[in-house]
Amino acid sequence: MAHLHQPEAPDTYTDIRNLRWSQTEKAIARKAFERALQKELHEVIQKTQRMAATIEHPSDLWELESFLTTRRKEIDDKFDYRYSVLPDVFGELVREGRVHEDELRGLAEDKLAYIRKFARF
Amino acid sequence: MAHLHQPEAPDTYTDIRNLRWSQTEKAIARKAFERALQKELHEVIQKTQRMAATIEHPSDLWELESFLTTRRKEIDDKFDYRYSVLPDVFGELVREGRVHEDELRGLAEDKLAYIRKFARF
Repeated sequence: MAHLHQPEAPDTYTDIRNLRWSQTEKAIARKAFERALQKELHEVIQKTQRMAATIEHPSDLWELESFLTTRRKEIDDKFDYRYSVLPDVFGELVREGRVHEDELRGLAEDKLAYIRKFARF
Repeated sequence: MAHLHQPEAPDTYTDIRNLRWSQTEKAIARKAFERALQKELHEVIQKTQRMAATIEHPSDLWELESFLTTRRKEIDDKFDYRYSVLPDVFGELVREGRVHEDELRGLAEDKLAYIRKFARF
């Protein structure tokens, strides 16, 4: 049960919602968030264009529709810019390799600890 | 109120559901129906490919998704191959120029009268 003794493990009882974000931190977070969102949307555009270019049968149309609906919902869910959930959002983006830790440089350790924790899940 | 006296107006009290379709008529109907359906689906494919090729912004993605959803539902509604509604279906297709009357040659006058009636709506 080594993880119980990790000195850097965040205090799971600290309420993430009570974290205070400075203006500088908010600017850093917003920038990293927007960059990841635009990158992910750009990937959807590219995949859509590849799928559309190879449509042969009507079923390919509805497959494209379903792909778009799924991706829209996933992106809406994932990119939730509320400070109360942002460490979790960034954790997922770090885990997926969509945000690199150096983009988050300048955030205080209280946020980074949570982000690293969520990134490991 | 001239339309009340049109000599060729179908008897609106005749139940379309009671029309009897011969095997030959069914084959003619099926062929015209399938041709119109495939043509309409092909148009959706072409428009999808044009829309996809010109996507610039994420909003264009969701516009494409919405277009596909709308067209899928419209086509599902319109192409209803039940003999009980087929004269109405063909009427709409004739009105839209998607089926030409000569594709329906061989149907008996009882069906054609209804089809023409619906086509005028």
